[in-house]
Amino acid sequence: MKVGIDAIAFDVANIHLPIKTLAKARNIDPEKLEKGLGLLKMTLPDAHQDTVVFGANSATKLIQDNDVSLDTIARLYVGTESGIDNSKPIASFISGLLEQKFGGNALAHCDTVDFTFACIGAVDALHNCLDFIRLNPNKKAIVIATDIAKYDLGSTGEYTQGAGAVAVLLSGDPAIMAFDAEVAVSSKSVFDFFKPYRKLEKHEFLQDADNPEWFGNLESEIEIHKDQPVFDGQYSNQCYTDRTREAYFSFKHEINFNGSLYNTWENIIMHLPYAFQGRRMLTEIYALDASGDAQSGTSDVSIDATTLKELSKSDGYRNFVRQKLQPSEYASSLIGNLYTGSLFMALLSALCENFRTQKDISGSTFGFLAYGSGSKSKVFQGHIQPNWKSAVAKAQLFEKLDASTEIDFEVYESLHKKERHSSVRQPNNEWVLDRIESVEPNLMGARYYKWID
Amino acid sequence: MKVGIDAIAFDVANIHLPIKTLAKARNIDPEKLEKGLGLLKMTLPDAHQDTVVFGANSATKLIQDNDVSLDTIARLYVGTESGIDNSKPIASFISGLLEQKFGGNALAHCDTVDFTFACIGAVDALHNCLDFIRLNPNKKAIVIATDIAKYDLGSTGEYTQGAGAVAVLLSGDPAIMAFDAEVAVSSKSVFDFFKPYRKLEKHEFLQDADNPEWFGNLESEIEIHKDQPVFDGQYSNQCYTDRTREAYFSFKHEINFNGSLYNTWENIIMHLPYAFQGRRMLTEIYALDASGDAQSGTSDVSIDATTLKELSKSDGYRNFVRQKLQPSEYASSLIGNLYTGSLFMALLSALCENFRTQKDISGSTFGFLAYGSGSKSKVFQGHIQPNWKSAVAKAQLFEKLDASTEIDFEVYESLHKKERHSSVRQPNNEWVLDRIESVEPNLMGARYYKWID
Repeated sequence: MKVGIDAIAFDVANIHLPIKTLAKARNIDPEKLEKGLGLLKMTLPDAHQDTVVFGANSATKLIQDNDVSLDTIARLYVGTESGIDNSKPIASFISGLLEQKFGGNALAHCDTVDFTFACIGAVDALHNCLDFIRLNPNKKAIVIATDIAKYDLGSTGEYTQGAGAVAVLLSGDPAIMAFDAEVAVSSKSVFDFFKPYRKLEKHEFLQDADNPEWFGNLESEIEIHKDQPVFDGQYSNQCYTDRTREAYFSFKHEINFNGSLYNTWENIIMHLPYAFQGRRMLTEIYALDASGDAQSGTSDVSIDATTLKELSKSDGYRNFVRQKLQPSEYASSLIGNLYTGSLFMALLSALCENFRTQKDISGSTFGFLAYGSGSKSKVFQGHIQPNWKSAVAKAQLFEKLDASTEIDFEVYESLHKKERHSSVRQPNNEWVLDRIESVEPNLMGARYYKWID
Repeated sequence: MKVGIDAIAFDVANIHLPIKTLAKARNIDPEKLEKGLGLLKMTLPDAHQDTVVFGANSATKLIQDNDVSLDTIARLYVGTESGIDNSKPIASFISGLLEQKFGGNALAHCDTVDFTFACIGAVDALHNCLDFIRLNPNKKAIVIATDIAKYDLGSTGEYTQGAGAVAVLLSGDPAIMAFDAEVAVSSKSVFDFFKPYRKLEKHEFLQDADNPEWFGNLESEIEIHKDQPVFDGQYSNQCYTDRTREAYFSFKHEINFNGSLYNTWENIIMHLPYAFQGRRMLTEIYALDASGDAQSGTSDVSIDATTLKELSKSDGYRNFVRQKLQPSEYASSLIGNLYTGSLFMALLSALCENFRTQKDISGSTFGFLAYGSGSKSKVFQGHIQPNWKSAVAKAQLFEKLDASTEIDFEVYESLHKKERHSSVRQPNNEWVLDRIESVEPNLMGARYYKWID
């Protein structure tokens, strides 16, 4: 039986800073960001938005647009690296909100949990749910990737920020895409990008060596949670290419494929921390698997940087990018990084672009190269199903992205620094963060949401 | 094909505070804790221990004790609600340490990820890995539950603290336990117990309304991570019994079973935040399913508290507890709460107690009632396999727990308040947290571990 994506929906911040505005403020040549990295707009959460809001909105749209009966959903799995609670999963928050909106206890037997592995956690959720449906062909699952990619003001990651969620409905006999069972994994424990707590000893900020109680904290140190990661961009790129190359050739081996694998792929869907990350990282695989002779992804087969740079400017590679990668990049250019949602948004972008250009991709194969820092890559493939067009039309991706509200630099900074508490854009037909409990001890920090008609 | 647990290993803090010592310091009648809740010892992390350490130690023992060839492990999945990083999973840390110890890139194709749903995340990891093996019968998986249950000094949760990890090797044709495919889920989004960040506005602790930069934090508020949860004990008990009852009857329905289901179970394995939680919460199911007539777990079938209290003192219930629950409680009495590890430790305890008393349980069925706050219950069952004794003997559970080092109240408080930075017990043949990077910006907060021979 075929299993895969039956429907897809998304939610983004719906406010954005033009990348030109940021470039100007930071004294960066806008061309470098626009033409070099493919960045046009950068989204960030409005005052009423968090990862639960994005996730719940994407799931609500998925359900509404596709008339999904909630009690057919056996699983609601979330991938995120922007968790808001160390115990209660975002999936649990979202299931509560869906019941609140669509009534009753429709999800009373729905299995919910969060997956964490940097930008690849939602892909792990996807693969586990596909296996679940292979074993339970009549059951359905929703996988949601929701994240906020926030970087320090003035840092080298600042122009790659973004915020939003993508939700997919998984089922047997899916309308959009059926996945093959094979998944190749390449994994290595590294610190290229991570999100540790920042420890601060009390004596560093209190003029007292005796560890006095401080706002209920009895420990001699406090641990501060920051949305911003610790990272080494160049090293992370190396990990991205190494893991991806290893997983790519491992996948060829697993499916026992001879010849140039990527040539069999109509589109290539990659994790895109910025729009052009994929095309900048893929030259090595492009070169190594051009003829299909290379059978290994170990580092001894890598090609020197100068050769790769030359190759990236060649007509052959430009055509390759235009045909196979570009359709997946458009949304990223208009949104920014979505972390776990990035690969799913790349897929939606490619689908919508093929739909827009009326390309008949039914029956074609898409290749997926997923990456999560820390680090892990997964390579797998899927096949476009006959009904993909009607399922994709509902998403109205580019129409919705066009309707985003532009903000200026001052508003951007005030939201980033959490100095602004009023919404830039009036919420409409969506979930909002209503309040966070700050009085009742047994509920301190509880987050409450409401639907705005 | 049968799939299930082929091997099991654990790691705990190996230091403990006698519950009598705590009771005395807090002016609590020790009988209430010892006889009422079944608490004898409370473990807590030594200066060199964290969730990665416990998880890596349990996995290392699993591999060493059972001569596991690392390159046969296709998955290393972790369940935890004590994550130390919002992006890089504990599973990735552990896979790196296992490669460091056992050599090479043996886990280069191993899929790693963390699951979060309070105390049930590792059960979710278990079920997903069992499905994976059902589809890939020659592959193996390791699931690790690792957690630190820390509560505020003087709080009502203080005497239920504990720390450690349990690792299970999952495979086809398993030596210890084969699980049935059916899993019943009961789920409802509530705030009975959770771990939110604690927000603190800068103006609350700085005499400055202008949001000045504070140790690199530009936001107007900081978010403090605490290991301690926010919870409502009584409400959480209610959620525990409601979800468990709903999942129990849903399971009966799913397997189309008539009659008293628990009477078919040799032992019942439950989530034990304290040793006697299971026996205190199970009276309702005991009463409702005595004859097997009740077919529903909805709240309209619940029984009043007075009747349940009477029932709990009856000879019938006492016998039921002694036969079916007590074997699983012993380890909890000597360790305390292990959150996600608690149910797995309850299983190990029951197995070791049956082994110790030379009971022949081969072929018998164990019932599992898992619970995670937030909230979700899963009910499922497994069957003891013929080779269980040899696999369980290796764990040496009670022998190792006996060797724990007792600490006094002063040492307990100094570890709790992180005022003590030197180890109480000299590490030996185990992983330790070596250092946390505090200088290099691109690695700030990176945690490094080493093996001590």
